[in-house]
Amino acid sequence: MKFQPPKGTRDFLPEEMVKREFVINTIKNVFVRYGFDPLETPVFENFEVLAVKGGLGEDVRKQVFYFEDKAEREMGLRPELTIGMARVIAANPQLPKPFKRYCIAPVWRYEEITAGRKREFYQCDIDVAGSESMEADAECIACAVECFKSLGFKEFKIKINNRKILEGFLELIKKEVEPEAIVEFSSVEVFRAIDKMSKIGLEGVKEELKKIGFKGSQIDELLKIASIKGSFEYVMKKGREVLKGIKIAEDGLDELEEVFKFSEVYEISDYFELDFGLARGLDYYTGPIFEIAVETKRSIGSIAGGGRYDNLIGLLGGRPVPATGISLGIERIIEIMKDEGMFNLPKTKVKAFVANVNEKVKDETAKIAQELRKNGISCQTDLMGRNLTKQLELADNLGIPYAIIVGEKELKEGKFKLKNMKEKSEKDFSLKEIIDMIQK
Amino acid sequence: MKFQPPKGTRDFLPEEMVKREFVINTIKNVFVRYGFDPLETPVFENFEVLAVKGGLGEDVRKQVFYFEDKAEREMGLRPELTIGMARVIAANPQLPKPFKRYCIAPVWRYEEITAGRKREFYQCDIDVAGSESMEADAECIACAVECFKSLGFKEFKIKINNRKILEGFLELIKKEVEPEAIVEFSSVEVFRAIDKMSKIGLEGVKEELKKIGFKGSQIDELLKIASIKGSFEYVMKKGREVLKGIKIAEDGLDELEEVFKFSEVYEISDYFELDFGLARGLDYYTGPIFEIAVETKRSIGSIAGGGRYDNLIGLLGGRPVPATGISLGIERIIEIMKDEGMFNLPKTKVKAFVANVNEKVKDETAKIAQELRKNGISCQTDLMGRNLTKQLELADNLGIPYAIIVGEKELKEGKFKLKNMKEKSEKDFSLKEIIDMIQK
Repeated sequence: MKFQPPKGTRDFLPEEMVKREFVINTIKNVFVRYGFDPLETPVFENFEVLAVKGGLGEDVRKQVFYFEDKAEREMGLRPELTIGMARVIAANPQLPKPFKRYCIAPVWRYEEITAGRKREFYQCDIDVAGSESMEADAECIACAVECFKSLGFKEFKIKINNRKILEGFLELIKKEVEPEAIVEFSSVEVFRAIDKMSKIGLEGVKEELKKIGFKGSQIDELLKIASIKGSFEYVMKKGREVLKGIKIAEDGLDELEEVFKFSEVYEISDYFELDFGLARGLDYYTGPIFEIAVETKRSIGSIAGGGRYDNLIGLLGGRPVPATGISLGIERIIEIMKDEGMFNLPKTKVKAFVANVNEKVKDETAKIAQELRKNGISCQTDLMGRNLTKQLELADNLGIPYAIIVGEKELKEGKFKLKNMKEKSEKDFSLKEIIDMIQK
Repeated sequence: MKFQPPKGTRDFLPEEMVKREFVINTIKNVFVRYGFDPLETPVFENFEVLAVKGGLGEDVRKQVFYFEDKAEREMGLRPELTIGMARVIAANPQLPKPFKRYCIAPVWRYEEITAGRKREFYQCDIDVAGSESMEADAECIACAVECFKSLGFKEFKIKINNRKILEGFLELIKKEVEPEAIVEFSSVEVFRAIDKMSKIGLEGVKEELKKIGFKGSQIDELLKIASIKGSFEYVMKKGREVLKGIKIAEDGLDELEEVFKFSEVYEISDYFELDFGLARGLDYYTGPIFEIAVETKRSIGSIAGGGRYDNLIGLLGGRPVPATGISLGIERIIEIMKDEGMFNLPKTKVKAFVANVNEKVKDETAKIAQELRKNGISCQTDLMGRNLTKQLELADNLGIPYAIIVGEKELKEGKFKLKNMKEKSEKDFSLKEIIDMIQK
């Protein structure tokens, strides 16, 4: 029991780390190409920052790994990466705007553990703070799609909606009924109910809306709008008709048309679907919200999501700063890539094992390893006093692709056996030839 | 106050992150070349793992950020990286040996905050588990030295000693006095006292040893041996004389001669200093212990330290596994490199700002940015609807080295102004030429 990592956490052994680092580095390179710079914040925050109203909301108490430091200051392990960035921007008003940052780092949530959900997991975010332009939203979406393409994904769906449109629905419904007929409710509660459609189905959503206080006809009205389907242009047209005269909703539709226009420049507009049923759970969204799904041989599912949150930074104090961003579901991406056989990686970062035929040539073997290292080639030598067979067994177990065999004869002749461990083939080469071959 | 990161922690803004990532990536590349693979463990551990006897010792209660999860399991944020690795090896006896891993990650200690010491900081470790050979110790030291060379450091001192020699001192002293003349003490307490020499001076150490229960003559004897100075060979010879017949000390001296022999292969033996006064604070060391200091224009100080700990993994249960490793003081390294002006890095990872002369060419500007990105060049475009002057101001503020100016004329002619932001020079080029130039 002592051996196990704490409940909800995992150890990542080298073979797994090779995959994770591949995904993280691929994504990081795309983030940088799109002009995002790295930012790092502490893994824990003062609890009052995490609990800021309009941020993570009430759930923060239940979800956060909470503790007091030795001076009884209340702290919480960060449950996501946005709040730390928002705090940094509030604390550093001198930062040039827009402030474009990425962060790929672990977060912690005290949640039910399932096959796909742990309590410690990585998030992978880009955000643009300071820009009100829908270009920023489009750029975040385009950057995320580019990440997925770089990882080998091919088919995408970009679902988009706007919190302003959702607010518009509620206004519409309020208009159509007596004010007394509807009880007080929080918009976010309604949005969350709608958002559960794919999980709990139409009847389930109706049930939830009833609980909130909606009446039958209002529910039907709401769900009728929320389930308009079709191309971006078709749904936009329908939305314009249904929501005509509702100022906030019209603003939301205008914004989405802007995002769509910019997305054409990025050549991703074909993936767009306007989905009035998309709501997303976080309190703090104020404008466009979006999710990206990938279609693979075996599955389809959302692997990124985000939206605009123009109020969050202001809520932390100081002046308000508009912001938008997207979070890539990196843990899910890694699982999908494994399931689909999309990784084609060795088990180790080590390229060569430099084996000695006996004790006497150990020093020379180490020197050859040093020569390989000087040429950028990762290698190991025997550290266990093992015979040649056992050394090659280790190389094989570790998944090291090449072995180089060093003996007295080889040293004299300047030719060494290079074994391709996978193909089980071997041939003699000079050290220079070996270095050239492995570098390729 | 809300804005501030929690006490003892820091936010790392992009300019700082560029430096940190440079150091981390440089070191990581060397680790990989030496055949180490990545391993990652959770940021918190079950408290009983952190408190394992012979591990971090009694201080763990005082030093660790402690909390209970919602099921009242006792947890602690890891105060170092070795214990997590040791647990993984105990939990996975199937792992091929030696198991060579690196880990570069944050740790947390509740300590007095000073200019150079925070409560959240990175550690940077390599360890070899499974090998009893002194080759493993020499390899870790050589790998660390190579890291420092890659970062631009030139002068090193490798101080080395052996816990077995220190144990030998105590045996020697016990032999020479009546057993009643000395009170019960823990060896580690004595080692820690000796280790403070550079901090509290000779008189201070004497005072500490008196407190432990040593008498005047014993103290003098102990400190006489501990302060033998000279070349590795000279101190070794002296040690052989003084410690003759003390089995454990002779074993320790033998081990160090082995490490020294292997270090010649790695061409680092010239840096070696045998220092009987080196003790290192951690309980769990059992064999060679070592520290690397660098000499720079303005300072000299230890920037890496480690040693052999053959009992720790066994203490976590399961079978014992010998191990050795070294930890690079990455936070200190970064500070020294700043002080010495060793960084020659831009403030940002972004290479180019693609500026538009007006609204009309915005889409074309974005398309050119996309073309740069396809060619691996990191760039930004305007997201604020700013005029050209303001766009170039932003590029300058962010420290972006190049700006490319896009207007209607430029688009028609296929030639764009490339501004070198630092040299304040500009010249017209085709897009292809620009891409080639920035790539170089």
